Amino acid sequence: MADKERRPPPPTHVGRSNIPSISSNAEEEALPEFEPFGIPRGPPNLKDFLDIWDVNILKNRDEINKKEHHTDLYDNVKLIVRRGQPFQIKLTFNRPYNPEKDQFCVEFLIGGSPQVSKGTYIPVFPNQEQVKGEWGCRILQSEDNVVTLSITPAADSIVGKFRMYVAVMTPYGIRRTARNPERDVYILFNPWCEDDSVSLDNEAERNEYVLNDVGTIYYGEASNVETRPWIFGQFEYGVLDACLYVMDNAQMPLTGRKDPVKISRIASAMVNSKDDDGIVVGSWSGEYLYGVAPTAWTGSVDILLNYANSGVPVCYGQCWVFAAVFNTFLRCLGIPGRVVTNFFSAHDNDGNLKIDVILDENGKFMPSLTKDSIWNYHCWNECYMSRPDIPVGFGGWQVVDATPQETSDGMYRCGPASVKAIKHGQICFKYDAPFIFAEINSDVVYWKRMRDGTQQPIKVNKQHVGQMVLTKEVGRDEIKNITDLYKFPEGTEEERLAVDAAVMYNLKRTQITEQPTVVDMDVRVQESVLIGNDFNLTLEFKNRTGQQQTLVIYVNGNIVFYTGVTKTEFMSKSLEFTLGPWETKTENVFVESKKYVNKLVEQATLHFIITGRVNDDTQILTAQHVVPLQIPRLTIKMEGVPKLNEEMSVTVEFTNPLKKNLEDVSIRLEGPGLMKTKVKMYSIIPPNSSLTWTEYFRPSKLGVRKLVACLDCAALHQVHGVTEIYVNP
Amino acid sequence: MADKERRPPPPTHVGRSNIPSISSNAEEEALPEFEPFGIPRGPPNLKDFLDIWDVNILKNRDEINKKEHHTDLYDNVKLIVRRGQPFQIKLTFNRPYNPEKDQFCVEFLIGGSPQVSKGTYIPVFPNQEQVKGEWGCRILQSEDNVVTLSITPAADSIVGKFRMYVAVMTPYGIRRTARNPERDVYILFNPWCEDDSVSLDNEAERNEYVLNDVGTIYYGEASNVETRPWIFGQFEYGVLDACLYVMDNAQMPLTGRKDPVKISRIASAMVNSKDDDGIVVGSWSGEYLYGVAPTAWTGSVDILLNYANSGVPVCYGQCWVFAAVFNTFLRCLGIPGRVVTNFFSAHDNDGNLKIDVILDENGKFMPSLTKDSIWNYHCWNECYMSRPDIPVGFGGWQVVDATPQETSDGMYRCGPASVKAIKHGQICFKYDAPFIFAEINSDVVYWKRMRDGTQQPIKVNKQHVGQMVLTKEVGRDEIKNITDLYKFPEGTEEERLAVDAAVMYNLKRTQITEQPTVVDMDVRVQESVLIGNDFNLTLEFKNRTGQQQTLVIYVNGNIVFYTGVTKTEFMSKSLEFTLGPWETKTENVFVESKKYVNKLVEQATLHFIITGRVNDDTQILTAQHVVPLQIPRLTIKMEGVPKLNEEMSVTVEFTNPLKKNLEDVSIRLEGPGLMKTKVKMYSIIPPNSSLTWTEYFRPSKLGVRKLVACLDCAALHQVHGVTEIYVNP
Repeated sequence: MADKERRPPPPTHVGRSNIPSISSNAEEEALPEFEPFGIPRGPPNLKDFLDIWDVNILKNRDEINKKEHHTDLYDNVKLIVRRGQPFQIKLTFNRPYNPEKDQFCVEFLIGGSPQVSKGTYIPVFPNQEQVKGEWGCRILQSEDNVVTLSITPAADSIVGKFRMYVAVMTPYGIRRTARNPERDVYILFNPWCEDDSVSLDNEAERNEYVLNDVGTIYYGEASNVETRPWIFGQFEYGVLDACLYVMDNAQMPLTGRKDPVKISRIASAMVNSKDDDGIVVGSWSGEYLYGVAPTAWTGSVDILLNYANSGVPVCYGQCWVFAAVFNTFLRCLGIPGRVVTNFFSAHDNDGNLKIDVILDENGKFMPSLTKDSIWNYHCWNECYMSRPDIPVGFGGWQVVDATPQETSDGMYRCGPASVKAIKHGQICFKYDAPFIFAEINSDVVYWKRMRDGTQQPIKVNKQHVGQMVLTKEVGRDEIKNITDLYKFPEGTEEERLAVDAAVMYNLKRTQITEQPTVVDMDVRVQESVLIGNDFNLTLEFKNRTGQQQTLVIYVNGNIVFYTGVTKTEFMSKSLEFTLGPWETKTENVFVESKKYVNKLVEQATLHFIITGRVNDDTQILTAQHVVPLQIPRLTIKMEGVPKLNEEMSVTVEFTNPLKKNLEDVSIRLEGPGLMKTKVKMYSIIPPNSSLTWTEYFRPSKLGVRKLVACLDCAALHQVHGVTEIYVNP
Repeated sequence: MADKERRPPPPTHVGRSNIPSISSNAEEEALPEFEPFGIPRGPPNLKDFLDIWDVNILKNRDEINKKEHHTDLYDNVKLIVRRGQPFQIKLTFNRPYNPEKDQFCVEFLIGGSPQVSKGTYIPVFPNQEQVKGEWGCRILQSEDNVVTLSITPAADSIVGKFRMYVAVMTPYGIRRTARNPERDVYILFNPWCEDDSVSLDNEAERNEYVLNDVGTIYYGEASNVETRPWIFGQFEYGVLDACLYVMDNAQMPLTGRKDPVKISRIASAMVNSKDDDGIVVGSWSGEYLYGVAPTAWTGSVDILLNYANSGVPVCYGQCWVFAAVFNTFLRCLGIPGRVVTNFFSAHDNDGNLKIDVILDENGKFMPSLTKDSIWNYHCWNECYMSRPDIPVGFGGWQVVDATPQETSDGMYRCGPASVKAIKHGQICFKYDAPFIFAEINSDVVYWKRMRDGTQQPIKVNKQHVGQMVLTKEVGRDEIKNITDLYKFPEGTEEERLAVDAAVMYNLKRTQITEQPTVVDMDVRVQESVLIGNDFNLTLEFKNRTGQQQTLVIYVNGNIVFYTGVTKTEFMSKSLEFTLGPWETKTENVFVESKKYVNKLVEQATLHFIITGRVNDDTQILTAQHVVPLQIPRLTIKMEGVPKLNEEMSVTVEFTNPLKKNLEDVSIRLEGPGLMKTKVKMYSIIPPNSSLTWTEYFRPSKLGVRKLVACLDCAALHQVHGVTEIYVNP
């Protein structure tokens, strides 16, 4: 009995709803080819009525529909159009159409149990006037037996894959075309249409944020930004179907699929696998035996196709993988999207405006007690849409974030939240704005922990978190700094007001009385440091008083994950010295490569925490400094003149920069319109040895194409290369 | 390999956070009894320092703490106090305490890795001044070896079960009491405290909404409201621990457990089992073989204890079960809560302001095409709290709803949403206000579906949905009508403005041009109908013109679930007649009991849809009428004079009103403070037979107590009885 109770039967919709919830685009029932009216009165005599001989939906890449709808790039033989914009179809009947006598319509259906009142069944009649919020249709031409129709889907139509029929009305019943999947029509969002809620009024921006299938993701450290190329691949074969599958798998009701706010919110939950068996499994552990290391991917296509084919979450991702896959999803459905990177992002901090760092009585950092972390960088997405669900003025770019966060809300979804609302501290408007506000505006609070367990805040750094927010420039491979979209300049009255507003909406902040500044401390590294090299960490101290000062300084060197989490401490050093009145002194701390090189994690960064005391306790000095180690690039060389469908080759080259063997090395090469993803494995690359890999392929698309390569092994990650190839006809 | 990929290792926090997310109240590490400072310099000499002989936390029901904190009703031997209010403890040392020399503190800890900056580790020192947002402590008395402390938890303290230690500081280290679970302290929300965010400034309301452990739930039909007694049982043995377990099982981080907004939101997800293996499995199918039928429960206690003991969702619940269990959770933690019932609740309608009803060309109802449903009633919860996360003015009662809804957001959680914001149509403020607004303000839109599949709206009824919202009166067993908290009066300017605001925030509405009213139709049933009886449905028609009118009327009688979903049609009848100029005519439709009695579902209601046409198409008539069938009550008779701990008995009596056997009948009897839940089974009760069940028990609590009984079998549900027993000392 107890066992019986543990296995209740699967839930049923009986008693709960007349029709089960319709949340699958894939589900369908075919309509009958003849649908009789009432009780048949003898065999119907249909010879006087229109018979449908042919339906041509002009779906080829070089025909009018895909060209005008900016969908000719999709590697998909079916018709793809955008809502709110007319497309043409040609119907051939057995005789000329007579408007006085003949009555026919074109029917569009999506999902199971389609209904007019839900927008899942739309019959369109010729010369049906275009009304806002409705579909329209007019006859462009009627010549001989052929009628050319111009059909305009409603600008707020459901987005997805529709089935299409042509139906002729007769007094005996409806005569209809047979179900033919070749006539399926994808309807997408339309940034080119003023009435669409994703309308974007700039051609260059539409080209970048909807049509560009290759991009750049920024990472590293604020003073040393690294770039990583990424193949979004939203037009590749199977990707559009995979995106629809994602919504089906989320059991998202079809009626919600007209609203980019709801779609982007569902996707922020579905891109990560937490809760809902979404697309990508997050892992930050450095152990990726069961899948692909987050650093090894070159693009989103393999991830989405793998997920759609298996239905099983794909291993593994970290923030830029979640953001990149999300970006593919958005652009594929026609929602303008971009990946942005926030440098020094406050994470998992419960939407409070503080990140707590715990020091011991001597001012030394205590990693075992410091729960909060500041990520060296964090990637999320922005998508462009109107926000009719919140007050006027908050439309435009919206933050969505698919990286699973550990927040007090217990939710693994985030956004959309208006960027403008975040800038003004108006975090009372949905969704999840407090968390995003905190990611870019938190203070770092240093606590001193006494031996008896008590703690008090001793210093607040208001500048460290959210140092800058970057994305790729429109139309070119450059950095676009969009920090000013998120924050008013530091120290301005507007900034103070925005933070005050956020605090009013219940974000918690720690206020302390600052100690007087007696000594200034500055930390730097002379030049960029190549991985495997020794270097000096330079500390500069300046006495701002006329008195002599005694300093005790602790330098902790840690290997950190990019999440700010410490893996190991590789050095710990203390200095003790005096500064004369107004004296400036420079101390160099020598960092040997052999101390760190065997302990590195995938993102080769060293994290220094420098703390200290002036004259025992007059002033506590604190600084954090991240040193990203430089990693060599892959070089990609092209041979031959690239021509459509003609064989050419590229060569990838790489030299091991470390003083040890690289083992189990994988290289991934990907170029949409050029080749499918290729992966090659090398069991060993000795020190200073080079590998050379030549790959032959035939370009399948014209114009500027990009080829991205990525090398990954346990000792060395984040080795990329990219090249541009212009394919001639 | 493929198989390997399908089973990735469990996620780890390595690389993601220094300390795993702390989301379990149950987790703990003991603190050492002696915590040495630094490197030991020989054996510590502790004889000069305070030694702790005894810690008395005055936790008995008749001692000061539980009395003053209104927690003496909890059947729990541990100390239970409310935040923001002082409680006392007595410490006995080996000698008198000397404030000049001795240093000690009382430590409160919750969960793993407790930290001061997270509010999970709180050391309290004697004479620690009370600061807002902090804990306070003062010495009330210091006499001989005994120190009496008054400790005040912060008014925004985390709510849950804390471990307590007393620690004495010495130069050698910390000397501490051993871990003793008997000194655990539960800290709850405090509606009696002005600074608490659940502060409620009315003693009668606090007595009802926090301290009353028995209540009434309303159901049935707006013109025929039924009542159902319910044992909330928030003070029963094990219930408080079960509520903490619910939050642990939701993996709710401890840091969020100070905020009633977050706790009530998490609970709205956890009370239903969808997504997260929450407490109750919803089922509306009428088949409850694998568990207890939703109608058979008498209270929340069994459900919560069963869930906490097994960790497995409990079968089965419907809206009032979800709402009742939620209410127990809220009151148990100290959040003022109540169950409310909305009559004619628009459901699963994607937050649109319309419920679509599809009629055929003749005006006859088409159930197979009508997806939307209007529930005869729907129960949800209100909880009382301030809302610092949204603009000022929206604190007070908040709607939360744990019944899983099928919305386009794909979420099985709802609220908290401000009742005041809903009334004013300010649905842009979190959480989920659009759905709740639609539940009480939707229009019923009648669509006429043509043979060719096209549809047009022909009539809108703005009055049907959200006819009234009821809850139990404060302090007595009467109905409190709170419709005016949710809606302005129908037809007022304020009502129009509120709906306009909601439409502005993107709720969709259907506007149609109304047809002229030619004929009025009114539907009624003469008296209340006892289950198993025949009756007349009376239709009254009034011609409002000077012309003769021809009417065709369809009457559909359906057995419906309370969700408005049709199980079967049990009668279908059409009438055709004429109305002379200005004539009023009454038509009676006879409804035979044998037609419906064997088809009834658990809530014995009949649903009539009356539609028709005047003069072919001048006007479409539509009406829906719900006839709830009256069900006999259980009678409960008391024998003996009820005295504390003295045996007494009650007798439950019931007579089968149907003309057939009742089979597999279960009766449940429950009375907190009187007896544990008892269940008795009867295999058969023949027609007109009576059962008599006498049960002996000893009351364990004083004062007014309630005993609730509930009978359930396949042919007859919702048979309740309740009696009040005054227990003398």
